Amino acid sequence: MVAELISVGTELLMGNIVNTNAQYLAEKCAQLGLSMYHQTVVGDNPDRLADAVRTALNRSDLVILTGGLGPTEDDLTKEICAQVMGFALEEDPHTRARIQAYFENNIYKTISQNNWKQAVVPVGARVLDNDNGTAPGLILEKDGKAAVLLPGPPGELHPLFEQQVMPYLQNLQPERIVSRMIKICGVGESQVEDRLLDLIDAQTDPTIATYAKTAEVHLRITAKASGEEEALARIRPVEEEIKRRFGQAVFTDREEVTLEDAVVRLLKQHGLTVSTAESCTGGLVSARLVNVAGASEVFQEGFVTYSNEAKQRVLGVKEETLRQYGAVSRETAEEMAAGGAAAAGTSACVAITGLAGPGGGSPEKPVGLVYMACCLNGQVTVQKYQFKGNRSKIREQSAVRALDLLRRTILDAYGADAGIASDATV
Amino acid sequence: MVAELISVGTELLMGNIVNTNAQYLAEKCAQLGLSMYHQTVVGDNPDRLADAVRTALNRSDLVILTGGLGPTEDDLTKEICAQVMGFALEEDPHTRARIQAYFENNIYKTISQNNWKQAVVPVGARVLDNDNGTAPGLILEKDGKAAVLLPGPPGELHPLFEQQVMPYLQNLQPERIVSRMIKICGVGESQVEDRLLDLIDAQTDPTIATYAKTAEVHLRITAKASGEEEALARIRPVEEEIKRRFGQAVFTDREEVTLEDAVVRLLKQHGLTVSTAESCTGGLVSARLVNVAGASEVFQEGFVTYSNEAKQRVLGVKEETLRQYGAVSRETAEEMAAGGAAAAGTSACVAITGLAGPGGGSPEKPVGLVYMACCLNGQVTVQKYQFKGNRSKIREQSAVRALDLLRRTILDAYGADAGIASDATV
Repeated sequence: MVAELISVGTELLMGNIVNTNAQYLAEKCAQLGLSMYHQTVVGDNPDRLADAVRTALNRSDLVILTGGLGPTEDDLTKEICAQVMGFALEEDPHTRARIQAYFENNIYKTISQNNWKQAVVPVGARVLDNDNGTAPGLILEKDGKAAVLLPGPPGELHPLFEQQVMPYLQNLQPERIVSRMIKICGVGESQVEDRLLDLIDAQTDPTIATYAKTAEVHLRITAKASGEEEALARIRPVEEEIKRRFGQAVFTDREEVTLEDAVVRLLKQHGLTVSTAESCTGGLVSARLVNVAGASEVFQEGFVTYSNEAKQRVLGVKEETLRQYGAVSRETAEEMAAGGAAAAGTSACVAITGLAGPGGGSPEKPVGLVYMACCLNGQVTVQKYQFKGNRSKIREQSAVRALDLLRRTILDAYGADAGIASDATV
Repeated sequence: MVAELISVGTELLMGNIVNTNAQYLAEKCAQLGLSMYHQTVVGDNPDRLADAVRTALNRSDLVILTGGLGPTEDDLTKEICAQVMGFALEEDPHTRARIQAYFENNIYKTISQNNWKQAVVPVGARVLDNDNGTAPGLILEKDGKAAVLLPGPPGELHPLFEQQVMPYLQNLQPERIVSRMIKICGVGESQVEDRLLDLIDAQTDPTIATYAKTAEVHLRITAKASGEEEALARIRPVEEEIKRRFGQAVFTDREEVTLEDAVVRLLKQHGLTVSTAESCTGGLVSARLVNVAGASEVFQEGFVTYSNEAKQRVLGVKEETLRQYGAVSRETAEEMAAGGAAAAGTSACVAITGLAGPGGGSPEKPVGLVYMACCLNGQVTVQKYQFKGNRSKIREQSAVRALDLLRRTILDAYGADAGIASDATV
């Protein structure tokens, strides 16, 4: 079954707001196993809106519209859909009573004549009671097609969709769709594609989709089947083969697990604590660790040592090391990591020093040169990177690769057996 | 002139990511005085993509496409646009050389055969060099219509658009569209709109558009005229009136100036240095300061003291303060700020301690409760906030408000006269 979205609102065309409703609804439709090939944003113009609805109903089975259900004269979604699909409009006493009650319970809001416009519904439409606003949701069915009209405010849209639209759509869906996510760090998207070319070429069901993130690649394996078990049975061999090919580069096989989640889980698993010693990243790495609720079990403190003086005083980097090799050097990174672990009394410390630019580069040390070191139980591993991009891109890549260096150092020391943050290691 | 957007990507149709590119480009087009009536999202399917491009070129003068320029097999945007618009494809030696150079400096050492696909361009297209990735931007012109193809990653899209596409689009416009940006921190969007209602209702030319950001509101004042001076003459009185109404809440009147830029400029202006003492933000504030190139003049070091033990040892927070008032308290925030300034030997220190959740809340101290303190020349100012939202929203809002507390504390101490980071204070 094919679904598509139409978001109605001039504020989207003007770029005043980000269309988070489209992402929300697209994800829900994917979960429901609905195929989606189109999303459209259109304004409050009657002709353009009517065209958009007609086009969508021609090429899709289900059209979900958001916005344009308000009380003002610019709000046309209901009227246009009724016109295009050939429904008459009449006032719904039940909805009128609910609007009345809504205003009686909201002392801060005064009812205006416009509001009664929201009690008018297409004759024969399913009316979805909205507990968080005055515009009801509507489902219009005709000739095997359906239009679902929902209010734009997320606080009204989400409960309406989850409580009333999802059950409706589940009943329309015979097939079950299941997908698994594999997340990889430290391999470029084109490299990942190359190493999976045979699987991707051969793919019919399950399918493999790659998503490039900053210094990460995410792989989604998706199968459709009559039941979840059948779908998973088709996914598993592909999932295992991908994990075999990428080994330690795979940091999780769970949708919701981030790189910092995987790192924190690994630290907990081995009873380790970590500190950070950051120069060019300026706190990005520690902030990523603190993204994880409960990080306090493994992370208690971090140092942002931007100046050489701070590197010496706080981390104990030697003055001669800075003089001889410079702040951006293998030697300084090493001493930062060892000094950070000692100062914080942690079993591990990850340190980053680099040239984020735009200024400060030289032929020997160009902008984008970053050294990072990981001290684990007194052993220090150092990595050198030459990143591309502007200041923030260099710093973001550095933060991701620093977390990954920490992860890989632990795997090397403790064995990769339980390396992937998966259902097995939650 | 009518522009429209086509975002290409299955990850948008699957709801894996929010379409922030559409918001970014829609705002830029509005800023350029372009009309926009449609935005479309379509996947990597050749026929549907070709249909979308054909439809867009029929109804609009300018079509901006993002995504689908990658090296993988399902990246088709360039190929489909060339086919629909009747352009041949050939390899561009200049672009091939740039890709070669990119990989010579890239962390992912080996170049993949796929990547050479990105050196192939439509014959006669304008090639826009991409300094942050391997896919060049492209401008295809035919029969008075234009298609602009840009890579999807924001880190590549934004510089390409601002440095190369905006000048191109400005030249296509007969009228000069001039806009000024006023950025406000510490006042909610609805409050801002209330206080500008009369101006917004009366607006014809110049127009006022509001953009809500995390704990910030940006106001764009736009005027159309035959010349820049004429447009600015119409903008200035509105701009002055808005600045008068919001006073210290305005942190800049320059498009490119961020809150951290404004803070760093203010510190430099008054010869101040700053350090950070962060608990729940975990380094977000120091990372924001280090976003600013040349921040090292005013920022040398920061402390992430996530545990009570670190708050005591590193910042000198008293044990009885933590016992009596707790880590999330006015008293602890005060001692963190004073202790941070002392430990780092800086004239200012901003400290943040709060409950980011999801756990750890209580009736007396609910999740979202954040205390922040700013110590400036020995004087400590404390602020209490109750933020809404999830863990990351609470932490992001905290970081922004902490930077703003630092800014306002300096303005209060040194006078607001040169408080706005504007042309006058660059």
